[in-house]
Amino acid sequence: MNYHQDSVSGVNIAYIGGGSRLWAWRLMADLALEEQLSGTIKLYDIDFESALENEQMGNLFSAHTAAKGKWRYQAVRSLKEALEGADFVVLSILPGTMEEMASDVHLPEKYGIYQPVGDTAGPGGIMRTLRTIPIYAGFAAAIKEFAPEAWIINYTNPMALCVRTLYEVFPQVKVFGCCHEVFSTQELLAAVVEDQLGVKGVTRAAIRTNVVGINHFTWIDQASYRGTDLFPVYRRFVDKHFEAGFATPGKGPWTKNVFNCGNRVKFDLFRRYGLIAAAGDRHLVEFLPPWYLKDLETVKSWQFHLTGIDFRRARLAEANQERREIITGKKEPKLEASGEEGVKLIKALLGLGDYVANVNLPNQGQMPDLPQGAVVETNALFRLNSVQPVVCRRMPPAISALVSRQVCNQETVLQAALTKDRTLAFKAFVNDPLVTIGLQEAEELFDQMLKNTKKYLPGWEV
Amino acid sequence: MNYHQDSVSGVNIAYIGGGSRLWAWRLMADLALEEQLSGTIKLYDIDFESALENEQMGNLFSAHTAAKGKWRYQAVRSLKEALEGADFVVLSILPGTMEEMASDVHLPEKYGIYQPVGDTAGPGGIMRTLRTIPIYAGFAAAIKEFAPEAWIINYTNPMALCVRTLYEVFPQVKVFGCCHEVFSTQELLAAVVEDQLGVKGVTRAAIRTNVVGINHFTWIDQASYRGTDLFPVYRRFVDKHFEAGFATPGKGPWTKNVFNCGNRVKFDLFRRYGLIAAAGDRHLVEFLPPWYLKDLETVKSWQFHLTGIDFRRARLAEANQERREIITGKKEPKLEASGEEGVKLIKALLGLGDYVANVNLPNQGQMPDLPQGAVVETNALFRLNSVQPVVCRRMPPAISALVSRQVCNQETVLQAALTKDRTLAFKAFVNDPLVTIGLQEAEELFDQMLKNTKKYLPGWEV
Amino acid sequence: MNYHQDSVSGVNIAYIGGGSRLWAWRLMADLALEEQLSGTIKLYDIDFESALENEQMGNLFSAHTAAKGKWRYQAVRSLKEALEGADFVVLSILPGTMEEMASDVHLPEKYGIYQPVGDTAGPGGIMRTLRTIPIYAGFAAAIKEFAPEAWIINYTNPMALCVRTLYEVFPQVKVFGCCHEVFSTQELLAAVVEDQLGVKGVTRAAIRTNVVGINHFTWIDQASYRGTDLFPVYRRFVDKHFEAGFATPGKGPWTKNVFNCGNRVKFDLFRRYGLIAAAGDRHLVEFLPPWYLKDLETVKSWQFHLTGIDFRRARLAEANQERREIITGKKEPKLEASGEEGVKLIKALLGLGDYVANVNLPNQGQMPDLPQGAVVETNALFRLNSVQPVVCRRMPPAISALVSRQVCNQETVLQAALTKDRTLAFKAFVNDPLVTIGLQEAEELFDQMLKNTKKYLPGWEV
Amino acid sequence: MNYHQDSVSGVNIAYIGGGSRLWAWRLMADLALEEQLSGTIKLYDIDFESALENEQMGNLFSAHTAAKGKWRYQAVRSLKEALEGADFVVLSILPGTMEEMASDVHLPEKYGIYQPVGDTAGPGGIMRTLRTIPIYAGFAAAIKEFAPEAWIINYTNPMALCVRTLYEVFPQVKVFGCCHEVFSTQELLAAVVEDQLGVKGVTRAAIRTNVVGINHFTWIDQASYRGTDLFPVYRRFVDKHFEAGFATPGKGPWTKNVFNCGNRVKFDLFRRYGLIAAAGDRHLVEFLPPWYLKDLETVKSWQFHLTGIDFRRARLAEANQERREIITGKKEPKLEASGEEGVKLIKALLGLGDYVANVNLPNQGQMPDLPQGAVVETNALFRLNSVQPVVCRRMPPAISALVSRQVCNQETVLQAALTKDRTLAFKAFVNDPLVTIGLQEAEELFDQMLKNTKKYLPGWEV
Repeated sequence: MNYHQDSVSGVNIAYIGGGSRLWAWRLMADLALEEQLSGTIKLYDIDFESALENEQMGNLFSAHTAAKGKWRYQAVRSLKEALEGADFVVLSILPGTMEEMASDVHLPEKYGIYQPVGDTAGPGGIMRTLRTIPIYAGFAAAIKEFAPEAWIINYTNPMALCVRTLYEVFPQVKVFGCCHEVFSTQELLAAVVEDQLGVKGVTRAAIRTNVVGINHFTWIDQASYRGTDLFPVYRRFVDKHFEAGFATPGKGPWTKNVFNCGNRVKFDLFRRYGLIAAAGDRHLVEFLPPWYLKDLETVKSWQFHLTGIDFRRARLAEANQERREIITGKKEPKLEASGEEGVKLIKALLGLGDYVANVNLPNQGQMPDLPQGAVVETNALFRLNSVQPVVCRRMPPAISALVSRQVCNQETVLQAALTKDRTLAFKAFVNDPLVTIGLQEAEELFDQMLKNTKKYLPGWEV
Repeated sequence: MNYHQDSVSGVNIAYIGGGSRLWAWRLMADLALEEQLSGTIKLYDIDFESALENEQMGNLFSAHTAAKGKWRYQAVRSLKEALEGADFVVLSILPGTMEEMASDVHLPEKYGIYQPVGDTAGPGGIMRTLRTIPIYAGFAAAIKEFAPEAWIINYTNPMALCVRTLYEVFPQVKVFGCCHEVFSTQELLAAVVEDQLGVKGVTRAAIRTNVVGINHFTWIDQASYRGTDLFPVYRRFVDKHFEAGFATPGKGPWTKNVFNCGNRVKFDLFRRYGLIAAAGDRHLVEFLPPWYLKDLETVKSWQFHLTGIDFRRARLAEANQERREIITGKKEPKLEASGEEGVKLIKALLGLGDYVANVNLPNQGQMPDLPQGAVVETNALFRLNSVQPVVCRRMPPAISALVSRQVCNQETVLQAALTKDRTLAFKAFVNDPLVTIGLQEAEELFDQMLKNTKKYLPGWEV
Repeated sequence: MNYHQDSVSGVNIAYIGGGSRLWAWRLMADLALEEQLSGTIKLYDIDFESALENEQMGNLFSAHTAAKGKWRYQAVRSLKEALEGADFVVLSILPGTMEEMASDVHLPEKYGIYQPVGDTAGPGGIMRTLRTIPIYAGFAAAIKEFAPEAWIINYTNPMALCVRTLYEVFPQVKVFGCCHEVFSTQELLAAVVEDQLGVKGVTRAAIRTNVVGINHFTWIDQASYRGTDLFPVYRRFVDKHFEAGFATPGKGPWTKNVFNCGNRVKFDLFRRYGLIAAAGDRHLVEFLPPWYLKDLETVKSWQFHLTGIDFRRARLAEANQERREIITGKKEPKLEASGEEGVKLIKALLGLGDYVANVNLPNQGQMPDLPQGAVVETNALFRLNSVQPVVCRRMPPAISALVSRQVCNQETVLQAALTKDRTLAFKAFVNDPLVTIGLQEAEELFDQMLKNTKKYLPGWEV
Repeated sequence: MNYHQDSVSGVNIAYIGGGSRLWAWRLMADLALEEQLSGTIKLYDIDFESALENEQMGNLFSAHTAAKGKWRYQAVRSLKEALEGADFVVLSILPGTMEEMASDVHLPEKYGIYQPVGDTAGPGGIMRTLRTIPIYAGFAAAIKEFAPEAWIINYTNPMALCVRTLYEVFPQVKVFGCCHEVFSTQELLAAVVEDQLGVKGVTRAAIRTNVVGINHFTWIDQASYRGTDLFPVYRRFVDKHFEAGFATPGKGPWTKNVFNCGNRVKFDLFRRYGLIAAAGDRHLVEFLPPWYLKDLETVKSWQFHLTGIDFRRARLAEANQERREIITGKKEPKLEASGEEGVKLIKALLGLGDYVANVNLPNQGQMPDLPQGAVVETNALFRLNSVQPVVCRRMPPAISALVSRQVCNQETVLQAALTKDRTLAFKAFVNDPLVTIGLQEAEELFDQMLKNTKKYLPGWEV
C-alpha cells in the first residue's frame, strides 16, 4: 500500500465469495464512490464463472464516469491466489445452496415451526451453522497460511459462529463481523425524532446508539439525538404506533416487500423488556420462544413475513439476469452508496480517520455478563490497524437470560461441528427456543434436516 | 457452648418453622442419636400451637431410652427469642399454605403444563419463589440483628433463591443449603455397584461423587467406589435397565409411592448428556422443556408421578394425627437416623471432624461456568467454623446451557421479588422452559396465579 | 439546561476548590473561549476569600471582549449551595497545605529517599493520600445527597484514589478523572513526527494513542500519525536523542523550568520495556525502585528536577499577586486556551459531538490484567450522558508487574484510610518501591510523617 | 494396576531424578512402610550411576524385615523407559549443579544481597528458574508422549514455575506440586497448643489449617485444633516468645542446624500482617524487601541462617558416603516414615480414602485475588483420579500486594525463559524485592550470573 497526503493507493482486497451478487455489488459501488482509496480486488468463488462475471461488473463500476476510486477487479481460481498479499479479506459466501436452505426453512414447518429467515437460530439456523463451520475452519487455516496479518471482514451468516470459528482455529486472526441490521433501527430512530420532535431530515448518522447483545438479537441500551435522550421519546412513539405499526423509513409499508416489517415485534419487546431491539423483526422472533411465530395468523398480526425459498430463488435469478444485462452493456450499472459501513471501517483501519461502529467481536470484556470469547455485537473504536470494543453495562437480567441461552447454544453447536458430534448437535437443537415439539418428533426432524445437509458435513456419520 | 474432650454441650439451635412435621422430626431423631452434642433447641413457628406440640415431641425424643444426646426443646413466640444466642439456625418453613400450592401446581394444568413438584422451577416454582423471597428478606434482617455470627442451615425450597436472598440482604451471613436429593442418586450408585460389580452391602457412604449444578438440577461428573470409576459401570447399568426402569433402593417400585420413580428420566439424561443427573426424576423434569411432561401418558411412560396437593394435604393430616398420638402417649416415638446430613455438618462446624458434603452456596469460584454469586450446589469441605466449596471443572456446554438458563431466570425472579416488579416477574415466567404456551395465554395464567398468591406479596400491585 | 440548535445554555457547574489558582483559571479561559456553552459556575472553597477573588476573576474573563461563552461566577459558602442544581462538578483541591507537602516531599530526603513530586506514590504520595481520602469520602456523601445525577470531573491528586474513594462511598457516582500528563507525551510524539518524518506543524490532536496503566504511570501501547505506526519511528528517535535528551515541545530545555525534563527516563523505559511511558519523567520515576532517584547526581544525569516546596510556595505567592493585579484592573486577564480537555468532555457529555480521551475510571473490563474496580487510565468514548472505556490488550508482563504492584498498594492505602488503620498504612508504606531503607528506619520515618499530617487524619490514633 | 479389597498392587512409578539422595530415600522408606501398595519404581537420572546405586538402596529398603509394601526398583537409561506405563511420575531433580548454585547464592553477596536459599525468588531463584524451565519443557513433552494419563508429583524447586511450565507446554497434564514447608508450621502450631492450652502430645495431624499463597511464601488464614480457633492462641504465643524465639519442635534450637530457625521472622510477620506465614523463615525472607536480610548482623538477630553452598556440598558427600555404606552392607538402611505426604496422596488418587492436603496447582478459582493459571498453594481434596482445590477467601490486601508482586515476576520469568529473552529476564530481575541496588550494578550482576549458568540456557545469546 502507498500512503499519500489523505489517501491510500495500492490497497489489496480479497473477496471470498466473489461471485456473490448483492453484497459484492454493494462493496463495488461504495469503493467506486470513495475518493481516498484505490487498488485491486481479487474475486474468489467456488463458482468461478460467477466470479468472472463479477470481474466485469466491478471493472464497469470502476470505469463509471462518476467513480472516484479506481479499482481493478480480477477473478482468481484459488483461495491462495486471492489471499496472498491481501491487506483486507472480505468473507461473504452462501454456505450451501438454495436446496439446503429450503430444507432449513421449510422442513420444520411440517412440525409447526415457522422461521422467517433460518440463518442464525432456530432449527434452520443450527443446520446452516453446522455446514458453515467446516468451511470457515478451512478459511481460518488458509488465512493463517497466506494472509495472517490481513484484516478480515465477515458478512456471512451465521455471523457470530463464523467469526468465532475463525478465532477458534487461528487465534491471532484479525477479524470482525459487519451486519446492517442495526442500521434500520437507527433509521427508525431518525424517524422517531421527526415524528416526535418535529425535526426534519435527520439521518441515521445523527443518531447515537450503544449496542449490546449478539448478531441479529442486538439491543440498544442508549440512544440519543444531539442533546436528547431518545428513550422517553421512543416510548411515546411506541405508544402512538403500537397498534398500527410503523414502516421503517425508506422501505415502505410492511406489506410491500418480504423483508419489510411494521416493527410491531420491536415495539412489543420494548414494552416488555425496556430496551430497543435492534434488528429486523423477522430476525428477532427467531431467538425467542414461538411467541410471534405460533402460526401464520400470528405472524401476520405482528406484521412481518416468512421469507420463502422460492422468493429467494426468484431474486437470485433476477440478479443473475441483471448482471448479464449490465456486463453485456444492455443496462447501466447504478452507482449509489449502499449504506453499508465496510469501506468506512477499511478507511479507519488505514488511518484515514477514527470511526465508531457496531461490529461482532469475541468478548474480551466489552459485555461483562457474557462469557469471554463468545462473539458479541457492540460498538468499537476503529483506528489505524486497531479495533477496540467499548465496555458496556450489564444487560437487564431478563434480556441477559434470553441472550445467554443463545450464546450457550451457539457454543454447543460450535463444539458439535468441530468434533462432528451428532448427539451434541441434537442437544443444541432441542434446547433452541423454537423447538417446543416433543423429544421424539424433534429427533425425527433433526435426522431429516441433517440428512438434507449431509453433503456439507464431511467426516460426519449421518 | 462448652467444648469437652470429644463433645460439645450447650449448643443453641434456633429452628425457624419449628412447628414443621417431617423435617423437624428428622432433626430431633438425629440429634437424639448423636452422642457428641447436647443443648437447647428453640422452636419458632407462625403456628405457635404446632411449635408447642413439637416441643413436646422433641422432649419425648430426648427422653427416649435410646437417646444419647440430651436436648431441651422450647417453643418461643418470636423470631428474636429464637435467634438470640443461637449458634445454629435451621430454616425450614412452608412459604404459604396448601391453598397457594394448589394454585402453583394445578392451575397450569389447565394450560397443559404439568409439574410434579412445583417448588423451584416452572410456573409453580416461580410463584412459590415470589412469595418466599419477602419472607427470607425478613429472616435476613432478623439474623443480621439477632444472630449475625450464627451458622444458618437452610432446608426450605426454593433452595437456591432462599440462600441467595439471605446473602443479598445480609452479605456477611453464614448460610448454606442442604438437600437430600443427591443422596438417592448415591444410593442408586450403591445399587449399581451391587448390580454390576457384585459387591454386596455397599452404602451411599462408600460412594464418592462430585456434584455440579443447581439445587434439584444437580449433576454428578465424577463417581467412584474405592478404586473403580463408576461412569463406565453406570453406562452398562443404564443399558441393562433402561427399558424396565430401576427402583431406587430402599424406596420400592415406582408405583408404590407418589415420590418414587423408576429412574428412567435419569437414564435418558445420561444417554443424552453424559453426566449422571442427581435428583429425583420428578424434580429433574421441571427444569427442562416438556420433554417428559408433555401429557399424563408421557409422564407414566417415564415412570414418575405428579404429586397432587390432595395427597400432600392427606399426608399432613396423618402427620398431625401421628404427632398427637405420640405426645398423648398413644404411640411411641421412633428413634431412627434420618439419613440427612445436617447434624454431621453441625459437628464438623464445631470442630468434631472434617466432612465433605454437597451443599448450596453462592458461587465464589467453585463453578467457573456460572456467574459469581449465583447459588450453586457442589461439594464443600466443612471444618471448624468454615465451609469451603471445592473447585469443579466446567460442565459440558450442553448441560451448561440448560443450567445457565435457569440461573438467569432465577436472577430475574429475585430482582422481580425484591423490587415487586410484576412485569419483570412475567419475563421470567415466559422464559421458563415449561411455559411453551402463547404469550397471551401465558399472561392470563400468570395473572391468575399471581392473584392466588397475592396475600404473600406485600407491596405488590396485583 | 436549555438545548439549542448547536449549543447549550444554562449549564450549572460547581467548582469545589473554587479558590484554586491555576486550574480554575484554565477552566475559566476555556469556558470563555467556548461558543457552544454558557451558564453559571459556583465556586466553593474552604478559603472563601480566595473563592471571592476567583469570582471576580471569572466574571472578568467572561466579560472579556474575546469571550464567546457567557458565564456567571459566584462564590458560595457551602458545599450544599455549590452542588444543588449542578450539572457538572469539578473537584480540584489541595488536600492540606504547603506545610504538609513540605513534610511529604522533604522529610524522606533525610533517609535518602528523593521524590520529585510526592503527590501519588512514594512516602509523600501515601501521606497525601491518607489525608485526601477522608475529604473525598465527605465529597461523595455530599454528592450523593445534593447532586447524585451530576457528572463529576476530578483534577485532584492522588487521582486514582480520589476517584476510587468517590465510587467506594457512593457507587452510583458519575465521576471520571482528567489529567494532562499524557498530553505532553502526545506533543513529544508530534515532535517525533517532525523530527523523523519531516512533517511540519503536526499537533498532538493529529496523534492517535492508546493509553493503559494508572494515572502518572501511564503507558502508550499504540501510537500512530495518519497511516504511520509510530513505534518503529519512536525507536529511531530514541536512539538519536537518548544521550542528549530532547526537550518536550513548547516547554523549552529541561534546565529552564523545574517541571521540565529531557525525557531521558522515558527513553530509557522505552528501551527496557518496549512501551512509551506517558507522563512527565518526574512522575514516572516515583513509581519505580530508586533507579533514577538514587541521589541528586543520578537525578541530574537523567535530566529532570525535584520540585521543592519553596518553589511551590513562591509560585503560589506569584499567582496570588497576579490575581490581585487582575481584579484591581492593573493587569489584563489573558484569554488563551489551556490545552486541557475538560470543556471538550463536558460538550460531549451534553451531546455536542463524540469525543475520545484518556481518563481515569474504575476498571470494568477495559484493562483485563488489573483487578475490577481499580481506577485505571485508558481511552474512553464520550457521548451524551455516557462515558465508555475501550477494551485494551494485556500489558506486557514486566510492565504489568510494575503497575500491579502500585495498584495493590493503592488498595491497601484506601482500606487503611477508610478504617483509620495505622498498621495497615505502614504495610503499604514499606511496600512502596522507593522505600528501600530498613524496617526500623521506615517506621521512624512513617511515624514522623504521619504526625506531620495528623491534622487531616480525623479519628486516627497518631 | 490391580485393585484388591483394600490395596492396590502393580503400581508403576517413574522417578525422574532417580539418583537423588534425600528425596528418593524418603519416598523409598514411605513406600516400604505402606501396606496397601506395591509395584515397581523406575529410576531415571542423568547420572545413571547414581540411579543404579539407588536401585540397590531401594531394593534393600523393600527387602527390609519391617517393610510392608513390596517394591521393585530398577534404574533405566532413558526418560522414555521410565515414563512408559507409569501410573505416577515423581519429578525431583537438581537443575544444574552445585557450581551454578554457588553462583546463584553467593555472587549477589558481593553486591550486598544475601539469600538463605536462592531456589525460588531473589537473584538466585530467578537464575535457577531460567535454567529449570527448559528442562521442564522437555519433561512436559516427554510426559505428553509417553505418559499422558499419569499423575505427576513435583518436588523440584522452583516449585511454582516447574508446575506452571508443565501446564504451559502440555495443558492436559495431571500434575500437582508437594512441599513440606507448611508442615513445620503445623508442627509449630501443635507446640502452640501444648504451650498455651496445656494439651500434651498433639501432632500436626490434629491441626487444621487453611493455606493460601504461593510455594515458600504461603500463609495460614484459618487454624484450629478441635473446637479451638488457634489465631488468638497464636497471638498470645507470639507475644510470649517474640524476643527469645521458639525452636520448631523436633528440630532443636536454631543454632543447631543451618536449616533451623527461631521463628522470629514468622512472629514478626504475624504481628505486621495478621496471618501465620507458613514456611521456614529462611524461605520467607527471600520474598520480601531486605528487611530481614540487610546484613549478617540482621540475619543473626532474627535467628535464621544463610545456607552456604560449601555446606550443601559437604552434605551431599556425606549422603553419597552413607549410600555406599548401605549398599555395601556396612550400614543398615533406616526404615522410618519421612513425614512427607506423597504416598498418602498416591493412595487417595488410587481410591484408598479421601485426603485433604496443601498442594501447588494452577489457579482455577481457588484464589480469587490471583490471576487464573498462576500456580498457587492451597488445600485440595484428593480422591480417585481427582484433585480439587478448595476455594479460599481473598487475602488481606497488604499480603495480596506482596504475593501478587511475586506472581507477576514469576510470569515474566516464565515468558523470558520460554522465549529466551534476556531483556525480559532482566526486567524480572530488577523488579525482585531483594534487588535494591542501582540499575547499572544490577545489570552487571545479572550478566555475570547469567554467564555462570549459560550451560543450561540452550539457544540463549549470553
